[in-house]
Amino acid sequence: MTDYPTHSQTESTNPTISTMLAHRSIRKFKPGTIPQNNIQTAMRAGQAAATSSAVQPYCIIHVTDSANRQAIADLAGPQQMVHDCGAFFVICADLRKHMLIVEAAGESYSTGLEAFVVGTVDASLFAQNFTLALESLGYGTCYIGGIRNDLPQVNEILNLPTGVLPLYGLCAGVPDESPSHRPRLEPDAMLFENAYPSDEVTMSAIKQYDEVYKQYLTDRGAKPSTWSEAICKKFSYATRVGLAAFYRSKGASLD
Amino acid sequence: MTDYPTHSQTESTNPTISTMLAHRSIRKFKPGTIPQNNIQTAMRAGQAAATSSAVQPYCIIHVTDSANRQAIADLAGPQQMVHDCGAFFVICADLRKHMLIVEAAGESYSTGLEAFVVGTVDASLFAQNFTLALESLGYGTCYIGGIRNDLPQVNEILNLPTGVLPLYGLCAGVPDESPSHRPRLEPDAMLFENAYPSDEVTMSAIKQYDEVYKQYLTDRGAKPSTWSEAICKKFSYATRVGLAAFYRSKGASLD
Repeated sequence: MTDYPTHSQTESTNPTISTMLAHRSIRKFKPGTIPQNNIQTAMRAGQAAATSSAVQPYCIIHVTDSANRQAIADLAGPQQMVHDCGAFFVICADLRKHMLIVEAAGESYSTGLEAFVVGTVDASLFAQNFTLALESLGYGTCYIGGIRNDLPQVNEILNLPTGVLPLYGLCAGVPDESPSHRPRLEPDAMLFENAYPSDEVTMSAIKQYDEVYKQYLTDRGAKPSTWSEAICKKFSYATRVGLAAFYRSKGASLD
Repeated sequence: MTDYPTHSQTESTNPTISTMLAHRSIRKFKPGTIPQNNIQTAMRAGQAAATSSAVQPYCIIHVTDSANRQAIADLAGPQQMVHDCGAFFVICADLRKHMLIVEAAGESYSTGLEAFVVGTVDASLFAQNFTLALESLGYGTCYIGGIRNDLPQVNEILNLPTGVLPLYGLCAGVPDESPSHRPRLEPDAMLFENAYPSDEVTMSAIKQYDEVYKQYLTDRGAKPSTWSEAICKKFSYATRVGLAAFYRSKGASLD
């Protein structure tokens, strides 16, 4: 087969792609809250993302209670912006809707790891649309994986029922900083044709990126480290070790 | 705090949000392949998505080999469009890069479920940007969860090494159909302020959506079913039961 005619002469400058390329995580926000109409718009855009067989296995909690925001800010780092940003959300895989339906029909809810994977994937397809929609409206955003430091406490703060699995938080608001873009691995180190490359090829791409990453940290005035050094620190011991037990306690199967 | 001034007077019509709202899964494509420059553009846009501490725990395999495409099309349904579409990708969580780095430093790679969650989430934030970028260039797309019908075979076809965990496929190409939009649950049934609603509220939202969903299927000439009926069929028995064992065999910890 031959190529389609090139689909856009301006492919790297269309507004959707420009919005994506403009992304940097924002950690400092101007005071104020996000108007409801903008949140509703981002919801509809988020929900338009694909979802496996329309199962829509996710939900999102908009945390407006100030004391609860502060408690989550503390356990997630502390990261004070969780409290101070314009809007803070917790994105959850939501198996509860399905559980209620199945039980109402007199059946018993039964899935394996598949439901956890679909919940995590579809929540994240939603979340990225939702986030990008907010960014297209001029807001800055930052995902907060730090809520996984203590999910039992998040669960208690939000009083989540069985089947609702908090995955990560999201801060949004009007940016009050303009950080530089953190460089990524080259596309050639992430996109492969037909087969995963040899370890030599992978390590060579990593070595090249190591220097780019170190320079980025140096330019920001942060403690210089190669990417390899950062990765090594992160993955040479298990972190957030209670995660599996917590999700299981909320009704997820990981088997 | 008071609201920020409304950030856009045209919030529901900006091009990024319009591209999201225009999404429908496309399953019939015109012959031809996607030019490399468009794939590269979508890669850079995809990689611009947030990634936890820059760990970039994903990769994407562009399957161009026709026999391999056909084998995956067969096991995923069959879904012939996996073979026939303009480009077919397999999105993977990629822990291998980290494993190689940690081992090269003389440490041993060790994580729990956290690495699997980060891999699945970050791969999906990437994938949704990548997909939306392709859609903004005029292509149609369809995620293919069906590869999880038989991941051991996908693994063999693509000859994936330890640490590379295939999650789902993605078809893309110039659309050769124009299906209607599948309705979603109302935003009120997905976005909650501070707390998850009572079961009565949830069931009431589901009942309302049941009729919308049935009408949609009827209008498409498909076998009518409420959403509840479809969900009940899907989640009253475990599906893809080998999934956890397969991911574990590829080096993922689910504990």
